[in-house]
Amino acid sequence: MTVEQLTEEERGSWLRGLTGWSLARDGKAIVRSFEFADFSEAFAFMTRVAMIAETRDHHPEWSNVYNRVEITLTTHDASGLSLRDVKMARKIDALLG
Amino acid sequence: MTVEQLTEEERGSWLRGLTGWSLARDGKAIVRSFEFADFSEAFAFMTRVAMIAETRDHHPEWSNVYNRVEITLTTHDASGLSLRDVKMARKIDALLG
Repeated sequence: MTVEQLTEEERGSWLRGLTGWSLARDGKAIVRSFEFADFSEAFAFMTRVAMIAETRDHHPEWSNVYNRVEITLTTHDASGLSLRDVKMARKIDALLG
Repeated sequence: MTVEQLTEEERGSWLRGLTGWSLARDGKAIVRSFEFADFSEAFAFMTRVAMIAETRDHHPEWSNVYNRVEITLTTHDASGLSLRDVKMARKIDALLG
């Protein structure tokens, strides 16, 4: 499936609505770091993100060190950032209440 | 808790017993990459590793991209590699059957 990459104007407009996320990889991805009380909380969060990822068939590139999780979202089918990343970021943010 | 760092001789000796793991960060860590059929399998594996990590109170530095998982083990309390990393690597390997 081909997915349309966001234009630079769209990127700016969508990103303004996403708190905590910033552009990475020359605007081809968005990234956010999350910090939790401990590993258990961090991994619980990751498990919920994994469910979202699997449901949407859109998977993050992410890393975890103890209580910290860093998530990078990009759309390989668009060779950059697409609306799927923005929607996924919103879903992830919604987990934090 | 202070944990003793492995000597260079011990490192070599223990590592020979660990298939697939290699030294990283100037011998201060060991790293291994795992590949699975898909994200679901990769995350199922990560969940089992998370249980081991929490039980042993020894947590990996790790990343995941779709079906790939990269795990780095190091012991902060030893400022390098300790027997805890070697034992943890064995536990992780045992998950793969």
